[in-house]
Amino acid sequence: MPTQTAVVLLSGGLDSATTLAIAKSQGYACYALSFDYGQRHRLELEAADKVAKHLGVIEHKFINLNLDSIGGSALTDTHIDVPITGVSTDEIPVTYVPARNTVFLSLGLAWAEVLSASHLFIGVNAVDYSGYPDCRPEFITAFEKMANLATKAGVEGHPFKVHTPLIHLSKAEIIQEGLGLGVDYSLTISCYQPNQAYACGVCDACRLRAEGFRALGVVDPTQYLS
Amino acid sequence: MPTQTAVVLLSGGLDSATTLAIAKSQGYACYALSFDYGQRHRLELEAADKVAKHLGVIEHKFINLNLDSIGGSALTDTHIDVPITGVSTDEIPVTYVPARNTVFLSLGLAWAEVLSASHLFIGVNAVDYSGYPDCRPEFITAFEKMANLATKAGVEGHPFKVHTPLIHLSKAEIIQEGLGLGVDYSLTISCYQPNQAYACGVCDACRLRAEGFRALGVVDPTQYLS
Repeated sequence: MPTQTAVVLLSGGLDSATTLAIAKSQGYACYALSFDYGQRHRLELEAADKVAKHLGVIEHKFINLNLDSIGGSALTDTHIDVPITGVSTDEIPVTYVPARNTVFLSLGLAWAEVLSASHLFIGVNAVDYSGYPDCRPEFITAFEKMANLATKAGVEGHPFKVHTPLIHLSKAEIIQEGLGLGVDYSLTISCYQPNQAYACGVCDACRLRAEGFRALGVVDPTQYLS
Repeated sequence: MPTQTAVVLLSGGLDSATTLAIAKSQGYACYALSFDYGQRHRLELEAADKVAKHLGVIEHKFINLNLDSIGGSALTDTHIDVPITGVSTDEIPVTYVPARNTVFLSLGLAWAEVLSASHLFIGVNAVDYSGYPDCRPEFITAFEKMANLATKAGVEGHPFKVHTPLIHLSKAEIIQEGLGLGVDYSLTISCYQPNQAYACGVCDACRLRAEGFRALGVVDPTQYLS
């Protein structure tokens, strides 16, 4: 069977780095896609660049997209504070970016169609999908169905498959998987409000990351500010 | 019943101008959304601005998005010529932009969610959907279903509705509808390769537009180069 081509969404965080490593381990020829969407944690794009080089991809493309002009999220609107972890409720958090995964997968779909790739990888996972609607399996299934009606490739009988290899894994399991595949997590940034030297240590993304390493009993290479 | 809010995708062409006029005539409070996506016919954005001011919207937002870096279409890749009308076959034309309506609707969905709007309007129509997969009714239905799984609003029981008021209309019927609602078509640009003064007169978009006016027996205000 010839090598299959995949577009892998790569944010520069822990999950998407692991997802890329998994896609590569499964033999896919990988094209990485990152988004400069006005996020306050744009440093993650430097991490994405390092991760793509570290793991090796055929091409790494950046799409510019001013989602901050739409706002509605603490991640794209600097007037909304990133909440300190532990105070969140069952509600969808303010770090939710409206329709973000829909937008990102749509752009991944566009590139996949140009590349004649039938595979899309996204690092959504179980830890997130209690809070973010667009991380749930039923969303992914609906997106896949829509994608196959939306595109020339889908219409011509080359259906798209959206792969979510992390969807049922805990953060510790994700890290274990990635370490087994040689991922260097010191290159990744999970924090919602990092600076060049440190992760904040108090946002949900930092908490989930730190807990993952702790649960696995592995040293977290991240430098936390607090 | 209170006024309902709608996001209307507005390209600056004939179809989307008519769609906006219809949404307004149905009583929606309209927010227009346009895309600077690296299209060769960027002049349409000036038309979109004029149309939004002419018909009246609460806000008109432009999203910048470098779809030309993905390419794969005569509309975003200047190395691919826009075909002269009449030579096209049953195949999907090279002016098809991969996953464009999926991407645009996704961004419309994002803004709708921020605005607490449950309605999206898009001017896809029957003339196009034989050629472009993402203009077909089954695509719209699948998008709507996906959107309601993707979003906080959908999850919380405020389902999105994607309105396609032109979907079963011919170009002549669309123009008739728009004229009845006071649309000034001299403000709109349909051509895939216009200059400041003229439409090319030889692309599919020009041909469909000119035929629509001719079939209706109404003067086409467009200045065609040939």
